[in-house]
Amino acid sequence: MMLKPLLAALLLAAPALADELRGTGDLGLIVEREAGSLLVVDRSARAALGRIEGLGDLSHASLVYSPDERFAYVFGRDGGLSKVDILTRQIVNRVVQGGNSIGGAISDDGALIAVANYEPGGVKVFDAGTLDLVADVPMESKTVGIADVPGSRFIVATWDTGEAWILDHSANPADPVITKLEGIGANPYDALLTADGRRYIIGLFGEKGLTQVDLWQDPPQVTRFLPDYGKDQPDMPVYKMPHLQGWTLADGVFALPAVGLHQLLWVDADELTEIGRTDLVGQPVFALARPDRREVWVNFAPPNNDTIQVVDVLTHEVTETLTPGPGVLHMEFAPRGREVWLSVRDENRVEIRDARTREVLGEIQANAPSGIFFTDRAHRTGL
Amino acid sequence: MMLKPLLAALLLAAPALADELRGTGDLGLIVEREAGSLLVVDRSARAALGRIEGLGDLSHASLVYSPDERFAYVFGRDGGLSKVDILTRQIVNRVVQGGNSIGGAISDDGALIAVANYEPGGVKVFDAGTLDLVADVPMESKTVGIADVPGSRFIVATWDTGEAWILDHSANPADPVITKLEGIGANPYDALLTADGRRYIIGLFGEKGLTQVDLWQDPPQVTRFLPDYGKDQPDMPVYKMPHLQGWTLADGVFALPAVGLHQLLWVDADELTEIGRTDLVGQPVFALARPDRREVWVNFAPPNNDTIQVVDVLTHEVTETLTPGPGVLHMEFAPRGREVWLSVRDENRVEIRDARTREVLGEIQANAPSGIFFTDRAHRTGL
Repeated sequence: MMLKPLLAALLLAAPALADELRGTGDLGLIVEREAGSLLVVDRSARAALGRIEGLGDLSHASLVYSPDERFAYVFGRDGGLSKVDILTRQIVNRVVQGGNSIGGAISDDGALIAVANYEPGGVKVFDAGTLDLVADVPMESKTVGIADVPGSRFIVATWDTGEAWILDHSANPADPVITKLEGIGANPYDALLTADGRRYIIGLFGEKGLTQVDLWQDPPQVTRFLPDYGKDQPDMPVYKMPHLQGWTLADGVFALPAVGLHQLLWVDADELTEIGRTDLVGQPVFALARPDRREVWVNFAPPNNDTIQVVDVLTHEVTETLTPGPGVLHMEFAPRGREVWLSVRDENRVEIRDARTREVLGEIQANAPSGIFFTDRAHRTGL
Repeated sequence: MMLKPLLAALLLAAPALADELRGTGDLGLIVEREAGSLLVVDRSARAALGRIEGLGDLSHASLVYSPDERFAYVFGRDGGLSKVDILTRQIVNRVVQGGNSIGGAISDDGALIAVANYEPGGVKVFDAGTLDLVADVPMESKTVGIADVPGSRFIVATWDTGEAWILDHSANPADPVITKLEGIGANPYDALLTADGRRYIIGLFGEKGLTQVDLWQDPPQVTRFLPDYGKDQPDMPVYKMPHLQGWTLADGVFALPAVGLHQLLWVDADELTEIGRTDLVGQPVFALARPDRREVWVNFAPPNNDTIQVVDVLTHEVTETLTPGPGVLHMEFAPRGREVWLSVRDENRVEIRDARTREVLGEIQANAPSGIFFTDRAHRTGL
């Protein structure tokens, strides 16, 4: 196990000079969770450019990009918030802002970084330039599923109290106007915001069903739906619940991984009713639409985590089963959908495939890679 | 008239060094049609960085970006295809490839640039790196509405012969597999491809009605719709027909400028039937969705070309009428929709507004500005 990471380091392609003039639209970062490092990659060259190290505990780490696609803000499991420069490949700034952070978001003007915390709970909001604390919003609860709502707003759900909070920083960044929606369900464990910033979907651990907050209505409209969706076993752990970021909205239909079942559920986005199911080879983790939304790609929990299944959005049928290798933790599509990059954690590599022919186009050595994040995310809402 | 462009040149903000390391996700180009130049702008700073000159006839010019968001390919009315570097602000390469080109597209892998020509007609395809000719596809017709279809494909409509041609370069770039759809209607004058690459909508000048090509079907499915949509006067010129790029697909509904009427038409995207109309202050030219798709912004033909109207997608009602100034030719939203940049041609300036509060946030001097193009377009299909 130690040999492969070492080899990976040695095999790193001859690194480009960090001060070379270049565009940033085709760059990306790959989380190396065990090493606490980020691999900087070049999509066009299908190659690694270098590493950024010293980022602390990166298990379940996520990150967002600045609007210029030069800087990334990394949310670590140790409560660290790090700002890294992907051009110079250096840590620009790093603060330990909480005890256990699980995600963050960047405001639509690029000025504010919000972090949701397990410990001490609540949300902290930082200046994107300096990482100075701008606002501290305690919520007497762990917080989950934070997302950027258009108009310098953030939305988050509270695990302990079953609420959704909307923070509106547009008038005064340091003193957000708070809208609190109570009674949205027991123990929200994750949430997602659709790319248009309209629908905030909350997954519940403490009871069955899901909750939608329609942010286009004034006041926001709360709807419970899929009353039979949820865990069956009372002792099922949170980490066995599929991530809601793995939901997909394609052609007016949500595709979502069924909890504890070997199925994908299809839900009409307007009616919020189930309209079909697709049988899969294992228990789905992420169900991601290819950017053209013609297909949904699904990865799986062990023992099927070497497999990807491709499902047709029009027919709801599995059209292809791929086996990239053990530990396919994450998929990231090129912005116009031509390629897909797959983390094959247990083989210390990222596999690059043509998203249409499925042909393997390349491979990059990486130390136990998990999340892959391309810079085009800077331009998308709800990530 | 000469004074203002001169002042604009003098007022250009102290230009940043062209060799400065920086991200390219927040850059853009503004077409200065009379001067044949491009103004390089920085969205974050709301400022001009410099000019690229010597681009020939830029009336009705359009451009596309390379995947790394560093280079732009500019399609000029004189048949010129220019590749410019927005970091160094220089012309990298320029070929005169036809007599009169009206638009182009970049393939989803970033490798090919296709240009649609009025003279000599047909489509020419170039290597994005070198601008060497890769494929020349004569079609015995002027061509319009070229767009990038996922999978190294392009689609274009033919004015003289009423066809749609799909060029598939995925197997052999130099020898595309051609699918020809005949009888799509008399004299297509423009077309658009939806952002998912599924629906190609063709506007007709020679008869009433519109044509949709559904590219998700195999073979592609052709549907005629809105049989009463089109010009009423037999002598109406082509340039009075609204551009189809001004169509918007928002929440399952197309919003389209009505030909020769002071109305916006709402069309159900699945049924292709009209579901409503909104009365406007003048004859609409572009109807663009704000990126969150909550609103459609409309500009107008003379004498109302000083005005913008904002229409609510849920209620179909006009919620605001703005008058930025004479000659509002083009609107471009920041990728997550927070700002909108408006070309005010006759006042030689670009006005920047908050897309939510409508507040004026800034202004940039430009010589008779027309099209505004932000680099996030590199990541979108159908532009």
